[in-house]
Formats: sequence, structure tokens, C-alpha cells
Amino acid sequence: MSNRFGHIFSITTYGESHGPAIGVVIDGCPAGLSVDVDHIAQQLARRRPGQSAIVTQRNEADTPEILSGIFEGKTTGAPIHILIRNEDQKSADYSHLADTYRPSHADYTYNAKYGHRDHRGGGRSSARETAARVAAGAIAMQFLQKFGILITAFVSQVGSVRFIFDPENVDTSKTDDNAVRCPDPEKAAAMEELIRAMRKEGDTIGGRISCIIKGLPAGLGEPVFDKLHADLAKAMMGINAVKGFEYGSGFASIEMRGSQHNDLFDVDEAGLVFTKTNYSGGIQGGISNGEPVYFDVAFKPVATLIQDQESIDSAGQKVVLEGKGRHDPCVVPRAVPIVEAMAALVIADHLLRQKAYENLNNL
Amino acid sequence: MSNRFGHIFSITTYGESHGPAIGVVIDGCPAGLSVDVDHIAQQLARRRPGQSAIVTQRNEADTPEILSGIFEGKTTGAPIHILIRNEDQKSADYSHLADTYRPSHADYTYNAKYGHRDHRGGGRSSARETAARVAAGAIAMQFLQKFGILITAFVSQVGSVRFIFDPENVDTSKTDDNAVRCPDPEKAAAMEELIRAMRKEGDTIGGRISCIIKGLPAGLGEPVFDKLHADLAKAMMGINAVKGFEYGSGFASIEMRGSQHNDLFDVDEAGLVFTKTNYSGGIQGGISNGEPVYFDVAFKPVATLIQDQESIDSAGQKVVLEGKGRHDPCVVPRAVPIVEAMAALVIADHLLRQKAYENLNNL
Amino acid sequence: MSNRFGHIFSITTYGESHGPAIGVVIDGCPAGLSVDVDHIAQQLARRRPGQSAIVTQRNEADTPEILSGIFEGKTTGAPIHILIRNEDQKSADYSHLADTYRPSHADYTYNAKYGHRDHRGGGRSSARETAARVAAGAIAMQFLQKFGILITAFVSQVGSVRFIFDPENVDTSKTDDNAVRCPDPEKAAAMEELIRAMRKEGDTIGGRISCIIKGLPAGLGEPVFDKLHADLAKAMMGINAVKGFEYGSGFASIEMRGSQHNDLFDVDEAGLVFTKTNYSGGIQGGISNGEPVYFDVAFKPVATLIQDQESIDSAGQKVVLEGKGRHDPCVVPRAVPIVEAMAALVIADHLLRQKAYENLNNL
Amino acid sequence: MSNRFGHIFSITTYGESHGPAIGVVIDGCPAGLSVDVDHIAQQLARRRPGQSAIVTQRNEADTPEILSGIFEGKTTGAPIHILIRNEDQKSADYSHLADTYRPSHADYTYNAKYGHRDHRGGGRSSARETAARVAAGAIAMQFLQKFGILITAFVSQVGSVRFIFDPENVDTSKTDDNAVRCPDPEKAAAMEELIRAMRKEGDTIGGRISCIIKGLPAGLGEPVFDKLHADLAKAMMGINAVKGFEYGSGFASIEMRGSQHNDLFDVDEAGLVFTKTNYSGGIQGGISNGEPVYFDVAFKPVATLIQDQESIDSAGQKVVLEGKGRHDPCVVPRAVPIVEAMAALVIADHLLRQKAYENLNNL
Repeated sequence: MSNRFGHIFSITTYGESHGPAIGVVIDGCPAGLSVDVDHIAQQLARRRPGQSAIVTQRNEADTPEILSGIFEGKTTGAPIHILIRNEDQKSADYSHLADTYRPSHADYTYNAKYGHRDHRGGGRSSARETAARVAAGAIAMQFLQKFGILITAFVSQVGSVRFIFDPENVDTSKTDDNAVRCPDPEKAAAMEELIRAMRKEGDTIGGRISCIIKGLPAGLGEPVFDKLHADLAKAMMGINAVKGFEYGSGFASIEMRGSQHNDLFDVDEAGLVFTKTNYSGGIQGGISNGEPVYFDVAFKPVATLIQDQESIDSAGQKVVLEGKGRHDPCVVPRAVPIVEAMAALVIADHLLRQKAYENLNNL
Repeated sequence: MSNRFGHIFSITTYGESHGPAIGVVIDGCPAGLSVDVDHIAQQLARRRPGQSAIVTQRNEADTPEILSGIFEGKTTGAPIHILIRNEDQKSADYSHLADTYRPSHADYTYNAKYGHRDHRGGGRSSARETAARVAAGAIAMQFLQKFGILITAFVSQVGSVRFIFDPENVDTSKTDDNAVRCPDPEKAAAMEELIRAMRKEGDTIGGRISCIIKGLPAGLGEPVFDKLHADLAKAMMGINAVKGFEYGSGFASIEMRGSQHNDLFDVDEAGLVFTKTNYSGGIQGGISNGEPVYFDVAFKPVATLIQDQESIDSAGQKVVLEGKGRHDPCVVPRAVPIVEAMAALVIADHLLRQKAYENLNNL
Repeated sequence: MSNRFGHIFSITTYGESHGPAIGVVIDGCPAGLSVDVDHIAQQLARRRPGQSAIVTQRNEADTPEILSGIFEGKTTGAPIHILIRNEDQKSADYSHLADTYRPSHADYTYNAKYGHRDHRGGGRSSARETAARVAAGAIAMQFLQKFGILITAFVSQVGSVRFIFDPENVDTSKTDDNAVRCPDPEKAAAMEELIRAMRKEGDTIGGRISCIIKGLPAGLGEPVFDKLHADLAKAMMGINAVKGFEYGSGFASIEMRGSQHNDLFDVDEAGLVFTKTNYSGGIQGGISNGEPVYFDVAFKPVATLIQDQESIDSAGQKVVLEGKGRHDPCVVPRAVPIVEAMAALVIADHLLRQKAYENLNNL
Repeated sequence: MSNRFGHIFSITTYGESHGPAIGVVIDGCPAGLSVDVDHIAQQLARRRPGQSAIVTQRNEADTPEILSGIFEGKTTGAPIHILIRNEDQKSADYSHLADTYRPSHADYTYNAKYGHRDHRGGGRSSARETAARVAAGAIAMQFLQKFGILITAFVSQVGSVRFIFDPENVDTSKTDDNAVRCPDPEKAAAMEELIRAMRKEGDTIGGRISCIIKGLPAGLGEPVFDKLHADLAKAMMGINAVKGFEYGSGFASIEMRGSQHNDLFDVDEAGLVFTKTNYSGGIQGGISNGEPVYFDVAFKPVATLIQDQESIDSAGQKVVLEGKGRHDPCVVPRAVPIVEAMAALVIADHLLRQKAYENLNNL
């Protein structure tokens, strides 16, 4: 059951890094949605390796092939299968790893769990799997657009270079103008410099992605366990290399007082309710209140280094692991569309759930 | 579906703050477990209001009544229903709130979602519901003990008073010696002082709970979406007032390099694999590696103040909300057993999942 | 997970025959439904033992206590817990069975599965559990009434006494005028006579219940696996003592030709589509077509006899099982409200699912 | 959620009759299973069109391509994707149907549900989808073989030609010796004659498939809702054209007495418990008791005729539907592997569930 995500708008992904293909089956997308295949391809292009000098040079076009669920340009209500072929697999690159546990990868734990593993490029544990999520997320985003909901993520920190912003007013129009995907050009330049320095040393560095969701109606999210932010947290923590999640005031709220943190309600001239501040991050009691939802995701430094490291093999013998192959010195530039995709999947699912549960007062 | 948690070892909770009772049905606890009812009562006592001078003075015994699923002291495999009566409901305390939206509570969002709401003490959105989780979690903890798994949480921060510790070696034996539930007596005293100061001002303050899981075998957790830390994150984010989650190196990993962050493998004299450091927090690729699992949870300051606040009513009119009633100046001391309970439920579920999926190599 | 039924409108039941109480938690009932508690009690009264001379004389009032989810007479969207106390438990009646496997009961299989069992009255395997379903089903029926959907079941066969009817035109208004719950008074009398004869001999007899659902809109039911009739089948087969399910033309269709079986479409004067015949049973491709849905459920003869029977005990020794205690000579009269309840739960769930998935053509 | 089946050993199918491909993703198959791809192909060959003179002449090789989840011949624990290309699609055959509702097909109901539909060959409602289930079921069967569990289905009735057999002793070794798949050569010949007569008339006829499961350990199946036979019923009713399901004594039990129907327990010389009769069909209280499980499935006559039929179009106008194209005069010969596949999926899922829930008595 672990390769499925979502209750109503749900996805199942499959595929390994070095198998013939990866893909996703979307089950539960309503019928009648006009699908823009170019948009799917664009989101995949934002995630794909080889797109700039600061990401891994594995080179894959990542062309989405839609094999079902769409007829005459529209969703039919049947499951949508998107297949993405693996093209630039260099399995030989990994043959030296068949019996070695790479530090802070999933090699050891997969072996412990499954008794054996597909060692080629991490197999199922490879971040390659996230391409399938990006493809599915693009369809979720197109669905959400019908309801005026917009999801935007960007890089807000690389190492100690941090971009501080106001979630209500940040201008994200320039996010894709630089290879790092930080909307602030100066910070972006500093981040890129840091990433290049890491690459030179064969080392890696962590990062932070921030995401803002606008246009969300009040009422999405379910008490008690499926709070909107709880499902967002699970979605984000399920992305490779993620170590932390916070929304609204987040960890900073620990040092705040209630009198400072409470978001006071007010009504505008049109009679619409709003809050004067938004420490709640657009969610109260697990349910959206109509204000922008925003959250941060922490990514650890990539574990693949171009440096020699000590490790052990499956026989428990010490080995030296040579640093070679292709890698990302920092994962966050390519992870921006993944964060957007997972957020879109969560929101689409909750939108459909809310449609189902809709109260009977207007009946 | 939102009041259910877990796939195999699963719970469904019900009940409102000011109804006759709350409770939980546990579905999927294996048969043959000897249940210690006193331990359930003890965990409830750690969560219950009125237990010390620094928590809310609502006074409830929280006696667990087991109505099914246990026969002759052992679980039968049938669903276990634990009912907890509400005793000290002062609904009248809340009558002035029937039409008012309290800031940073769930009043407004519940109304938006459901069209009307049970305004008495927050109804379903009240943290009272978590008593049901604590009761269920106690049974999960007893189940896990059979496998040598131990879960321990404690308060590690209140406001700016922080207790820094080594997750591998922290001594938690004194956690319950003080009302704050911080294992360090000096920090505990400073935290308590801060909480008392908040109470005096009718204000509140945020806090942090840390949790450590020991004895976990390697192999628990499921790629891709149900990573062990993703399910822990969802469980924690589903607790009232939680704003953030991090595990292992967490947000600090953003500023770390891969060469520093990678946990190198080694083997001990007995041939057992271990990692020299544990930035991974005991989880790699979403699967436990046998090292201790540890994580932090951020709690915002409680929204109920004993201060007047501006707000609006359901007609959109401005009102002044009087600060009165009983409240917690800081939520973390009582939230420690809730964190433990939710962690136990996640681990019990994953333990059963792993039993189901167990690889066939030994067949 | 096995004590839960339904995806969106879902229930979890708990409780044993001779424990303190049984009950149900309904999760997913929309907010704003006015609940008629008397109707719940009436449905329970139709199922309860001791209601007539031809059913078991265990005597229980089966009063539903609603402990959550309803405020000021309306559902709030929170889970609804209905508790029903066990009153006339005579556990001593069963003490002689602690180590004996009753033929065609669940004693042996529960032992095989769980390692031990609650032998008092069958414990969890007792049909007593179905009272919880009837209570939940009553709320589902009230929900469906809002949409003009009506579910009616009745007894159509006891032993070889069969009531043949036209599902489109059968008059079910007199179903409850007799103890058997067959709408035809003459057939009802013959059935009752047969049941009385069985009772006299300490024997039991099988029966058939038919159910008709009217007012269902076209479009409910999900391809591929969750076809409307597939979910109805699972719901019915989950009722104690059920051995078979058929809908529409059912098993009789085996001997029919396509040219005879096909339901030709036509339009009435108002332009509404209908089918000239209804061998499809109101469902085509798993989805309702607007015609009445009808199906039959086969119940085996009750296994508890007032006759001595050979059996074995848990040590594998042969024993003679004395026939004593209270029992139903035929299960179908009391099973009518259970069939209605399970049907209502299936339809309510599919109605909410359809609301969620609704196509976007009108957006 | 409707295109997914199973809880732990679960499948998701996708694809339309006339799209580029159909397929299935298996999620939850344990790691370490050696997979025999030839066996998958053989089961597909038993289902495929064009295999004999009495089935539809659509001609497809139905080659299974495994795109993930298997490495070095063994399952890895990752999802297994099997893709089957559509080869002999003659979409033009269906262009005249774009606006017409074929009687007793899913055309009208899909339109009612989804607002539009893929009219080419029934799209998603086509029985072509079941090829994906057969492929997945073959892997489930291979998994079950490891535990000594064997599933065998065969045709036991076509029209009024019925093969009566003893489920404990029927010899099914000759099932595939004839095109009908009835183990009795004489009955098979009569059935084939009947099917040929139907084809000549452009008409169709219903049928019955019986299935026997041997080697099942006692203890599989979950009370209350997920009884083993309830899940089998749902699985079978989800197959295209199925109208009824019965297990053990089935509908015949209606006319039986308890004293006749009860299966008395006994022990054999080796001390093993068995029942002297098996009206229970190997399942008591929803749980397997170690005796053979057997059940029957009723299939209606195929709705596609080579005869002109009256119908209406989407504008509500009367039309005459010409009978042309390729069709099956009787569905049961090709449905035998589908019944086996769905049964295998149910049993594999329950086997894993039982492994998870296993009682703690031996701990």
C-alpha cells in the first residue's frame, strides 16, 4: 500500500532508477478536465537532470506518455497512466556498489527490509521516482486552476544563504529566471556560488524550499487526523532528503506568546472575513481559513559525494567507497516542482473530500 | 474517514469536549496481548488537566472503561473500545461564545466547513479528543514492549529556555520528576518559572517536545509515500497546536555539508552494523536502520488567553472577547504523553505492516 | 481494518455478544442532517430478539445512546457514536461451551485464527454485532431520504415456501403486518407455520430476503472494482449466515439468451430515458441507470439447534453437544432491517463518492 | 479509488479497450518471489480473444511486459508494473456507436456519470480490462503456490446444460482439453454445441463458473465485514457480466434444515480436525476452516448481439442498432482465468493480512 498517495484524488507510482520506465497511475481525477500535456512536460523539465550547470548531468528528456484516461483531450474519469521512459541509464556506473552500503543512502535499509535490492542507482529509492509525482502533480495543478487555486514554491535557503520574505507579498515571478529557483536575484547569485563551490570540492549542501498556496477556499482539511497541514507534512516528508516541515509560524512559534501569535479576525469593506496577521499559515484547527497557506521544507545535503568515503559491504567488511559518477551538489533547485506537485496532490484530494462531505444546509 | 488513523493497527476516535464521553476503537491489535489497564490510566493521568499548578484546572479523572476486545485480561483480536466520560464540563462557561469566533481557534473554520458547530469548549476541535489517543497509544506501547521497543518523549524547550541534549545518551529517567516534564532539573525550573509568569499575565507561550524511540529493528517504514518519518510527521502534525516537525538533523541539516552529515557505517565486535554518527535519525530512505529514531515537535502558544481580545461574531460584527475560563499557559507538559501515544501508534502499525510484507527469502 | 465498512460514509463497529455493550462509530456523515432517534430505535426493534413468538427469546430493549456527533438535533460532521448496552446476557448458558467447537459456528475458526476466543455467546462472531449496523444504517437511511432514495427489504422465501413478485410493482406496505415480514399475507402464514414446526423439532430452516432500492439517480457506482452491485454483494455477504447474493436476473440469467435479456432503452413523453425491462437490476457496467435496483440474499439455516449433536473439543476429544438455550429457528424475519441497513450504508457511501468525483462539465 | 483492489497485496489497473495499452501495478507483493513470466503469458492466453472458434475473433497476443518491481528474476518489494499493448483495435468498428446507447451495456450509465465517454469498444467498461487482472492474478497464484494453495476454476453450466460435481472430488485435470473449459468431456461437447448454435443465430447465452481453492490453512478471513467469502463475492461481482455469487451450500441452503446443513467436526487418525460434510464451503464465521473453499459465479448472456436492436441515441431519438462486429456468444470459457485471478488476489491479500495480525501466543 506504500506506493499509493491520496484518498480520492490518488496516485500510485512505480519504477526504478535503472529499469525501462517509471510512471504513475492517477485514480480519481474527475471527468471533463481539459489536460494540457505541454504543462506536464514543462514541470518535468523543471525537475529533470541536466537542465543547468548546478545539477546532475544525467541527461533525460522525461517525455510524458499518456496511455489511458484521456479521450479527445479531456479526462474521462478512468485512471490516467503517465509513463516516462528511462533513457540515460548507466547501470555499469553502479556495478561496484552491488555489495556496498553507501553512507546515508537506502542501501542498507532496503537490504534489511527486502533481503535483496536493485542496486542500480538506488533502484526504487532513487529520487528518479519523483518525476512520476511531478507528472501527476501537474494534472492536479490544472484541476486546481479551475477553482482558482495557485501553488508556488521556490528556494529560500542554500547552506547559510537565506532569503527572508513576507509570505503574503513575495514576488515569485522571477523564480525561474535563475538556475537556483530563488525569486531574489542577489540571494540566488550567492546560492549559486555556494553550490558551485560545493561541486568543486565534490561535496554537497542542504537547502530550504518555501511554498505558498493562494486562492484556497475556507473549509478544506479534515479534523482530526487528516488536518490539512498534517497531510501536507506527510507529503513533503515523503520527498527524498527531506528532514523537516513547518507551516505558518513554525518552529519560531515556540518562542512566541499567545498575545503576539493570535491572528485577530476582521471584516473588510465587502464584508469578507480576514485575519490581520497570518501566523496560522492559513490553517486553523486543521482547516483552511481562506488566508494564504505557506510552509517550509528542509532538505539535507545529498549523500552522494565525489569524495572517497569509508563504508562496509554486505559481508560486514570495511571498504573504501570511491566518489565517482554524476550527482547533485544541492537538491533544492530541482526539488521545487516536486514540492509543488505534492502540495497540489494534497489540495486536490482535500478539495474532492470536501465536495463529498459538503454540509446539507443548502439541501 | 478523517477520524481514523493507521492501516493495520488503526484507531477511530469520537467525542466532543462537552458531550457525555469521548473514546476510541482500536481495530487491528493482534490477539493474545495481556493488557495492563493501570498503565493506560497512568498515561491518561500524565495528560489530564488539573495535575499540577501549571496546567488548566479543569478537573477530570479520565478513567478508561474497556467495553470490548479484551477477555480474561487478553486482547481477543476483536476491536477494543475504550470509553472516557467527560465529567467537569462547564458548558455555561462557553455560552457567550456561541456566535463569536475566537482568534486562532477552529471556530471560524468549523463554521465554514460544517455550516454550524458545537461551540461548547471547541467541541470536536478541543484537545480533549487527544485523551482517546493516549488511551489507544498506551495499548500500542504495551504491544511494542513485547518487541523490546521503547518510546520516550520529554519537553526540550519552553519559550527561549532550551534543553540541549545528545539523543543517544540523554537520561530521561527524571522527566516526570517535575511538572514541566523536562529531564534536566535546572532547565525544568527555568521553564516552570516562565510558564508561571505567562499565567500571571493571562498569556501563553510555545514549546518543543523531543521524542526518542529505541529498540526499533532495521526494516520498518515503507517507501515511497509511507516513509517511517513521513508517518511520524503526519501523526505529530495532527496533534493540536503543532506547527513543525523535524527528525534527525532536521532544519539544521540545511546548513550542513554532505561530507559532514553522512553517517558512516561500521561493524562492532559482534558483527553488528552501526553508524558512527546518527544525523539520519535512525531512518534512511524512509526505513529504520536500527539506530535510535529521534524527532522534535514544535507547539505554538495556546490561543486561549485571559486577556480581552478583539474579534468578530458570525454576523461579521466586531466584538470584544473577554478573557475568562480555564486554560493552559503552555501546552507541552501535558502533550508529552500525546506525542508518545501517536509515535507508538505509528510504530505498531509499521511493525504489523512489516510482518505482513516480510520477504520470502526464508520460506 | 476488518471492523470498518465504507470509504466516505463509513462505520466501525465493536462489541461482543456478552460484553457490557456493542456499538458503532459513524465517520463521514455530512453535517446538517436532522436525526430522528425514534427511527433508529424502530429499526433496532425490528431486529431485536424477543419481538415475536418465532424468534429467539433473549430479551433486550436495544436502546441507542448517541454519545457524540449530534448537537441540537443535527449532525455536526464529527463522528457519531451510538452505544447499545447488552442487557440480557446469560453467560452461564455458555460455560459448557468454553472448550467445545459447535458445528457450523465460528468457534473452531476463531480459535485457529486468534489462539483463544470469547466463548460467551459467540463473542464477536455473534449476530448481536449486527444491531450496531442497524443503528448506523438508520442514519444512512435518513440521509438518503433527503435525496428521495428509499430502501425496502422483505422475506421472500422460507424453506420451500417462496413468494414470487414483480420487483417493479410489489406492494411492500404490509411487510411488517406479520411476524415473518413477508408482504404477502398467505405466503407469510405458510412461512410462519413452517418456522413454528422447525421450532417444535428444535431444528432450523433457511430463507431468502429480497431488497428493492427506488429513487436512485443514474450514475452511482464506480468502475472497475467498486461496482455498485459488487459493494452490495460484499455488504450482504458480510451478514451472518448469508450464503449467496444475486441482483437483477441473477442466477436465472445463466439460462437466458442475450436477445431476451437485453433491456431496451426508450424515452417517455417527458423525454426521460427508461428501459422496457429491467433484467439489469437497475445497474449497468456497475453504475446505476435510474431504474429500481433489486437483489436477493440467501440465508442458511441457523446452526444452533435444540438437539444433541456430536462434536469435538479443543483437545480433539469427541463430545456430545447438548441442545439448549435460546435460538432463532429461522433468521430471516429479524434480518430484514439488517439487509436494509447494509444497503443504505453502501448507497450513502456511493452517493458521497459520486458527489466527490462529479464531472467538471458544469464548472 | 475505484480502480484499486486489495489492502496489502493490492492492484491498480488502467487502460481502455482501444487506447494504446492496458496494465496493472501490483503494490504489496513481498520481496523474494521468483516470478515465472511464462505462467503469466499462459494465463493471459487462456483469457485472450481468438483462442478458439467459440470466442470473439479479435486477435491479440497479449504479451505481458514487466516494467518494474522484478530484478534478477525476483520480486524486490517495489511495485510491479505489467503493461499489455492493445494490438487489434478497430476503432472504426465503433464510430457508429458514438451517440448511441447499446442496450445492457455501460454506454448510458457512463454518460450519466462522466458527462462524456470513450465510445470505442466500451472504453474502460470493456472486459479487455480484465486482462490486467489476469496478469496480476498469475503473480498472486505463484505467491500462493509457495504456501501450497491451489486455485482451480472451470465452466459448470452453459444455458441449461449443467455439470454437477462433488467439490471435494471433482477431477479438473481435463478442464483445458476442450474450448469450453468444462472438465466433463460430454457436458463440454453439449455446451460447445449450444454456444455454436447461439453464434449462428447472432445470439448469446449465459453460464456458470465454479471455483475450488485447496490447501488454504485455517484462520484466513477477517470478521466482521471482510469475511473471506464477502471479499470473494466482491471480487467476483466486479467481473464484467456477473449477476450472482454463492459459496458452499449457497442458494440451496434456503431449503435446508440446520440438522442437515451443520458440518459435524471430527478428528482423523493424525489428530487433524476435519468436518464430515462441507456445506460451509470451507468458511465458518467468515474465516477458513481448512476444508476446500468452493463457490459459483453466474454470468449473464453477453449484451452484444449480431442482430438488429432498437435503442435510443444521446439526443433521446429512437435508432436501430445494427448487429455487427466481433463478439463472444458466451463469456464463460474466457472468464475461467479471470475468476482464478480474482480469487488468487483475494487469498493473497488475506494471507498477508493474517501474517500481520498473527496472534501473540507464540511470542
